[in-house]
Amino acid sequence: MPQTFTPPDPNYENRIRASFGEQKAMQTIGATLGSVHPGEVSIELPYSEHITQQDGFLHAGIVTTIADSACGYAAFSLMPANSRVLSVEFKVNLLAPAIGEGFIAIGKVIKAGRTLTVCSGEVLAFQGGESKLVALMQATMIRVD
Amino acid sequence: MPQTFTPPDPNYENRIRASFGEQKAMQTIGATLGSVHPGEVSIELPYSEHITQQDGFLHAGIVTTIADSACGYAAFSLMPANSRVLSVEFKVNLLAPAIGEGFIAIGKVIKAGRTLTVCSGEVLAFQGGESKLVALMQATMIRVD
Amino acid sequence: MPQTFTPPDPNYENRIRASFGEQKAMQTIGATLGSVHPGEVSIELPYSEHITQQDGFLHAGIVTTIADSACGYAAFSLMPANSRVLSVEFKVNLLAPAIGEGFIAIGKVIKAGRTLTVCSGEVLAFQGGESKLVALMQATMIRVD
Amino acid sequence: MPQTFTPPDPNYENRIRASFGEQKAMQTIGATLGSVHPGEVSIELPYSEHITQQDGFLHAGIVTTIADSACGYAAFSLMPANSRVLSVEFKVNLLAPAIGEGFIAIGKVIKAGRTLTVCSGEVLAFQGGESKLVALMQATMIRVD
Repeated sequence: MPQTFTPPDPNYENRIRASFGEQKAMQTIGATLGSVHPGEVSIELPYSEHITQQDGFLHAGIVTTIADSACGYAAFSLMPANSRVLSVEFKVNLLAPAIGEGFIAIGKVIKAGRTLTVCSGEVLAFQGGESKLVALMQATMIRVD
Repeated sequence: MPQTFTPPDPNYENRIRASFGEQKAMQTIGATLGSVHPGEVSIELPYSEHITQQDGFLHAGIVTTIADSACGYAAFSLMPANSRVLSVEFKVNLLAPAIGEGFIAIGKVIKAGRTLTVCSGEVLAFQGGESKLVALMQATMIRVD
Repeated sequence: MPQTFTPPDPNYENRIRASFGEQKAMQTIGATLGSVHPGEVSIELPYSEHITQQDGFLHAGIVTTIADSACGYAAFSLMPANSRVLSVEFKVNLLAPAIGEGFIAIGKVIKAGRTLTVCSGEVLAFQGGESKLVALMQATMIRVD
Repeated sequence: MPQTFTPPDPNYENRIRASFGEQKAMQTIGATLGSVHPGEVSIELPYSEHITQQDGFLHAGIVTTIADSACGYAAFSLMPANSRVLSVEFKVNLLAPAIGEGFIAIGKVIKAGRTLTVCSGEVLAFQGGESKLVALMQATMIRVD
């Protein structure tokens, strides 16, 4: 069953949108922030040649970049104002070649602790109205005051 | 003790340099291929604002991008000609903020199997002649024929 | 949405129950096989002092043992007769102290490939009619013929 | 180059040996504590049928059990007296079937932070005077006061 989270900072969405705007890597790869909910954040990325590996697939590191930010902001949505979030570690399985018209990374909080938050991230590829799961992330985020 | 590997394809370095040249994501982030040895490959990346996260550190996904390619090409160096390499999965610990004048990712083969190759990757940050370990990767690569 | 899998071997449940019976480590820790469905297997483990760490919690390695077998058999349920399954790698987050009257590990197939299968595993602790998620696994299994 | 660590608690070895003695799971599987140095701890485990999986190999969860405790105590060696250590997460690659007369898990601290410590663990199998790397762990440990 999906969990319901109550963010300690009611201004969490503005805080996340402002922080995302400062992630210059997101502009470089062409990603934009999608939906922002308590404990769940999505990031959208259109396919583009400038972020591919040798076979024309999205580079696994770029797939990871959007999954990491989606998970980080999902964790951040449940942190108090004036805190910061950093990635402690993550593990990513690449399930299928990251090919498609566009991609969406969805980060969800699994367990929000005082210091550490564990998240699950998915990256879906979209092509002609169909979607496919191309990557799965399990991540640990830390709150820094 | 470090292992010594004998690459089945004596032309492995050319094959890797050609493949790296086709990774458009590498040009986008500003990374270049460093040394290429059997079972060990390094990738260099100067610090640049366009690949940062909200605090001005290198984005964890970009750190992962160079570590993943370094590990992938380390694995690829021990694969036969005409094979391809793909990332199955990786896990990255971010050990310190990725700040510095430049970064180097070093990928090393730990175990080269017929189908799967397990690699270890390190990312070091350089600042004023000092280096610091900022990320550690453990990765599984697969050979595709 | 949950996936529906069709096992290539209709005899998959017998095959899994026979294999589980040969995992002597399961008898040693006191685990029993629960439900067996295509792509989803559960393992039950009552709390016992002989499998604890220094604080009286279930040892993280024992938590991993039941999650690994649940994921391995979930993968195995979708493999052809006469194949074997081995763990390539897994990553486990320990989300809460593993304390309770009993535990259940549920392994689910996320992506079944020809050679590699990616699974997600959960370990729940039960106490007084309540359950709590204590561990989350992301695992890669390989089919060996 | 190997790092040199100075443990804040000079009594670290006694503290670790006492804690290990309370890990009942270690007695159950037959493991004993080997060497204890600042930032590096080893655990020894003779092969025994009661800890195997269906093929007669050491169960991957048992391999993980000794690697986890070796990493946890390596981290613990650098923590102050009166603190406790818990596993946050770990990732394990199984590199070869865990077969042999005996096994040794060696846990080493890679980065000791105030709260989190990142460790690397290896499990070696011994057979007839030869050793073989059978598993590689990357783990995050947390200090609890």
